[in-house]
Amino acid sequence: MQLRRLLTRTSLILLSLLTCYQATATTDLLVEKKRFELDAFTTFGGKTIKQLQVGWESYGKLNNAKDNVILITHYFSASSHAAGKYTPNDTTPGYWDAIIGPGKAIDTNKYFVLSVDTLANLNAFDPNVITTGPASINPDTGKAYGLTFPVVTIRDFVNVQKALLANLGITKLHAVIGASMGSMQALDWATAYPDWVPRMISVIGSGQSDAWTTALLEQWAIPIRLDKNWANGDYYDGERPLQGLTAALMFITQDALTPAFFNTTGESMQYSAMEEGPLNDINKSHSIVTWLHDRAENRSKLMDANHLLYLVRASQLYMAGHSDNLREALAQVKAKTLFLPSSNDLLLMPYLAKDSSDTLQALGNNTHYQELSGNLGHLNGVLGISQSAKQISSFLQE
Amino acid sequence: MQLRRLLTRTSLILLSLLTCYQATATTDLLVEKKRFELDAFTTFGGKTIKQLQVGWESYGKLNNAKDNVILITHYFSASSHAAGKYTPNDTTPGYWDAIIGPGKAIDTNKYFVLSVDTLANLNAFDPNVITTGPASINPDTGKAYGLTFPVVTIRDFVNVQKALLANLGITKLHAVIGASMGSMQALDWATAYPDWVPRMISVIGSGQSDAWTTALLEQWAIPIRLDKNWANGDYYDGERPLQGLTAALMFITQDALTPAFFNTTGESMQYSAMEEGPLNDINKSHSIVTWLHDRAENRSKLMDANHLLYLVRASQLYMAGHSDNLREALAQVKAKTLFLPSSNDLLLMPYLAKDSSDTLQALGNNTHYQELSGNLGHLNGVLGISQSAKQISSFLQE
Repeated sequence: MQLRRLLTRTSLILLSLLTCYQATATTDLLVEKKRFELDAFTTFGGKTIKQLQVGWESYGKLNNAKDNVILITHYFSASSHAAGKYTPNDTTPGYWDAIIGPGKAIDTNKYFVLSVDTLANLNAFDPNVITTGPASINPDTGKAYGLTFPVVTIRDFVNVQKALLANLGITKLHAVIGASMGSMQALDWATAYPDWVPRMISVIGSGQSDAWTTALLEQWAIPIRLDKNWANGDYYDGERPLQGLTAALMFITQDALTPAFFNTTGESMQYSAMEEGPLNDINKSHSIVTWLHDRAENRSKLMDANHLLYLVRASQLYMAGHSDNLREALAQVKAKTLFLPSSNDLLLMPYLAKDSSDTLQALGNNTHYQELSGNLGHLNGVLGISQSAKQISSFLQE
Repeated sequence: MQLRRLLTRTSLILLSLLTCYQATATTDLLVEKKRFELDAFTTFGGKTIKQLQVGWESYGKLNNAKDNVILITHYFSASSHAAGKYTPNDTTPGYWDAIIGPGKAIDTNKYFVLSVDTLANLNAFDPNVITTGPASINPDTGKAYGLTFPVVTIRDFVNVQKALLANLGITKLHAVIGASMGSMQALDWATAYPDWVPRMISVIGSGQSDAWTTALLEQWAIPIRLDKNWANGDYYDGERPLQGLTAALMFITQDALTPAFFNTTGESMQYSAMEEGPLNDINKSHSIVTWLHDRAENRSKLMDANHLLYLVRASQLYMAGHSDNLREALAQVKAKTLFLPSSNDLLLMPYLAKDSSDTLQALGNNTHYQELSGNLGHLNGVLGISQSAKQISSFLQE
């Protein structure tokens, strides 16, 4: 059957991707999380956050001219841990370790590569993440903010990064590069601070959250708000809304992958539509659902449900330039740009990057567009990024 | 911009589709809901349902030979109201009124067209629907079944239909035709009772629920189970879980449509990523989300949340033939088959129909495959069905 052939091919591709990933992950770039603090920060919406702090990491060395800086902006469920390991025994390196490191596409022998935890970072309870968000203590009350934390935007993530760079004496980037929600920050950087950004790479990205994307993102927020433990976001003294958060993570996982990936996974677990458990009991689930649930539940432990709501909102409010006119904002861009969407992305479909790239081209920008392949959908931009290593490397050198 | 051109084209296509729909809807085929009862019914899972009743409708006349019967099997959120109006003033005709009626593709001057409400029909509180499911009174206890209602399958819907046909003295169909969950029933009919089915049309359908589809369907069940009013399905004496049900309907609506449709809708409501409400208040939503929510909330009033869970389960348990081997089941099919998936369907993607069609072709079946176009995704198979009118008409005459 054609489907079976497709699945077999998918398995091979996945295997080769994962092998690649393991192979490149063996170079041990040891990294540490650093802390950046601001006494006060004014959000795009005009609210003040006191005693703001975020974590950051860097790979490579800042040169004397301070002109070799590449900023990596992270995706929705990630942190500033883009590359390297915290200890030699660390089993999982940073998410883009395949392209960031000595001699790699983003060569830390040349560049000072830097990444910053966003505000309201999803992994609020991960000891390797430092963030300020609804789960943080409000210094005015001594209690967790909950929903009294102001709405934050992609622009706020950009402005915190800019404050950190300024604090390091940096006045210009060599490039900004990000995947997914990181791509939103990268393109917003290029529109808001064009003199800072000579090169911008958007991976699995978009120029704005259109009506479709905003509604899709809302699907991640809905189960959290339905969880009885959520309590309008004021749950920090009680039970956390982990069922709602687990559901949101299940949705995110599926949105970021593809039928080909799920069906290969199902095949390996001998998944069958006619499983006995769910046939005989409405409260039992098919094995693929249990697999998704258990992985999500495990991941939820270090994450905060309110933080997820705030990241959904930041992503929904995204239009590069944060104005009401994307074309005018893109007209501000001075950077050479590279868009790398994934052909079979079901979350941020390629038309989103294509639209921005086409507009930039019409505006006379030096823009490049190339679709990633592989059967991981949106995650081709994370787990399959090594396929673009040469293109990224060349783009950065020009 | 390319996107804007695409959206404008989409609006035109939508407009022409809707115009078509209105135009064909003006022929007033008046119909009435009838009731079919069974004292006892044994489910595929081996449980007994007492005093089962379902509603049914028919269009056209049964001939003396009783060999002009076309069975229409309905989709997830529909009922047996496939065509016609209940009263001359009825504003909305049955969902496939564009192709069922006097002189139409499924010509009621020739055929006796019949459709039956499924068990656990979603529209449990619609006065025009008759169904038996979790919201029904269990004759043994005098209380609503809730989750004590047995799991039901696509095969059970088929077997109830077969019992009704037998009761009418019918021993063979001219054709069985269904969209989406209706396609599951149609193809299961052709595998389970091949001597009954000389022609089968699967619209926006599949041969089985693979791991991807099962996980996607589970997304519709999750918000209901999270709603505090759901109470493990035992809510019939208290508040109904309408928030969870509304969320499920929002997900279903989005899964059944496309970015092009949403973005056209967003455009018409002057949707903007940077709306003031959601920028200033985490509890306010973008206009596209409010639009989706309000429509879903309104629809939820006549629907039952447990029924939705049971329809999700029936769809998850679907493999044509209800065995563990799809190919063997398809080898039983004697029908000439026609598959009409939708090119841009994000819910039941075309590969699902293609796989069954390819397998049938390899088995020597007289099978036909044609993708529906339009910008409505899955709903091209409902609102856009008139594009296939000629093909369906020819297929039925051969």
